Amino acid sequence: MERSDVEEEIMEATYRAICEHGYAGLTMRDIADESEKSKATLHYHYDTKQELFLVFLDYLIEEFQERVDGLETEDPAEEVVEILTPRSEELTEGFRTAVLEMKAQSPYNEGFRRKLVEHEKSLSRRLEETVRRGVEEGVFRDEVEPSEAAEFLITLMNGLRERSVTVGKTDEELRETVEEYVETNLIYDAEARDRDGDRYGSSGGET
Amino acid sequence: MERSDVEEEIMEATYRAICEHGYAGLTMRDIADESEKSKATLHYHYDTKQELFLVFLDYLIEEFQERVDGLETEDPAEEVVEILTPRSEELTEGFRTAVLEMKAQSPYNEGFRRKLVEHEKSLSRRLEETVRRGVEEGVFRDEVEPSEAAEFLITLMNGLRERSVTVGKTDEELRETVEEYVETNLIYDAEARDRDGDRYGSSGGET
Repeated sequence: MERSDVEEEIMEATYRAICEHGYAGLTMRDIADESEKSKATLHYHYDTKQELFLVFLDYLIEEFQERVDGLETEDPAEEVVEILTPRSEELTEGFRTAVLEMKAQSPYNEGFRRKLVEHEKSLSRRLEETVRRGVEEGVFRDEVEPSEAAEFLITLMNGLRERSVTVGKTDEELRETVEEYVETNLIYDAEARDRDGDRYGSSGGET
Repeated sequence: MERSDVEEEIMEATYRAICEHGYAGLTMRDIADESEKSKATLHYHYDTKQELFLVFLDYLIEEFQERVDGLETEDPAEEVVEILTPRSEELTEGFRTAVLEMKAQSPYNEGFRRKLVEHEKSLSRRLEETVRRGVEEGVFRDEVEPSEAAEFLITLMNGLRERSVTVGKTDEELRETVEEYVETNLIYDAEARDRDGDRYGSSGGET
């Protein structure tokens, strides 16, 4: 989606404001305060907070997409781990909490719901592709069903992120859980990978 | 925890009010409207909305605990599935959404956080016991590590419940995912179970 410089700046200001104040009580004033633009400029671009937040959701989804598209690993197992694990430096506790707040609005907010469903579908397709490639390349087991694995991985990702907000699970714990799952359930011969030292992160996928 | 009849009635009224209005905007007035008690009576028992909600979280956790303690199955695999899958008739969409809203308050609300952590610990102990029994009885595989399995199951449960709110996953989909996980990851010989017709739910665990 093409956004003008002004719109881009408003999105970044929204990001900072939501990290600071959370979603529920956030006002256009809070967002303007994080930006060099006036509240009037905000309203010129976005009639309502709802409209702005729908664009903000697109913005977040694109950011996620760019990160995933930018992954440099060729290894399907590492790719799955990288897609599922958050980059701590970008996802502050305030931000994750705000995302959970927005998700809790989904049943009351048809626009939010539509975007979340769309995002999960596209993520599911991407994970399915990665898993299918893993099976074809013999990295993952033959009996792994790519679309089922993709669905399961999304559920796992949501559960992990929720628990990082609700009970303070750390990103290391999140990553370990995902790695453990991939090793136990997807990888054809995890022990051989261990012997070869070919584990996740060893090829610099962390950056 | 012992509650008087009045307190019990207030909890039930809170449940109805939260299903109706969600958590964020809920007022003591909304709760009083669902009850035969006056707003003054509410305030006599609970000084603030925060105080009332802390007791309400205890009430929910006890309800969950009672359901789990009341499970009649002897089969560890069925027990895991029953613990993890919600009973639709009791968990309306409004209620689940409100729970997600409350969870999103956890980073800002030390009392909520403490109760959620406590609840997950007790649930983890219970799942760990069930998994350990499953391993001892030869229903689950020897290599299953009970405490790791319990942690993973809680993450899975949270992810599933979140997705029932955010993207409208049905309870049947939730149950299938859990059953699939238990079969693929815990059960020693799922095919033999299938042959014997000894699958979950066949012994009436749904009630």
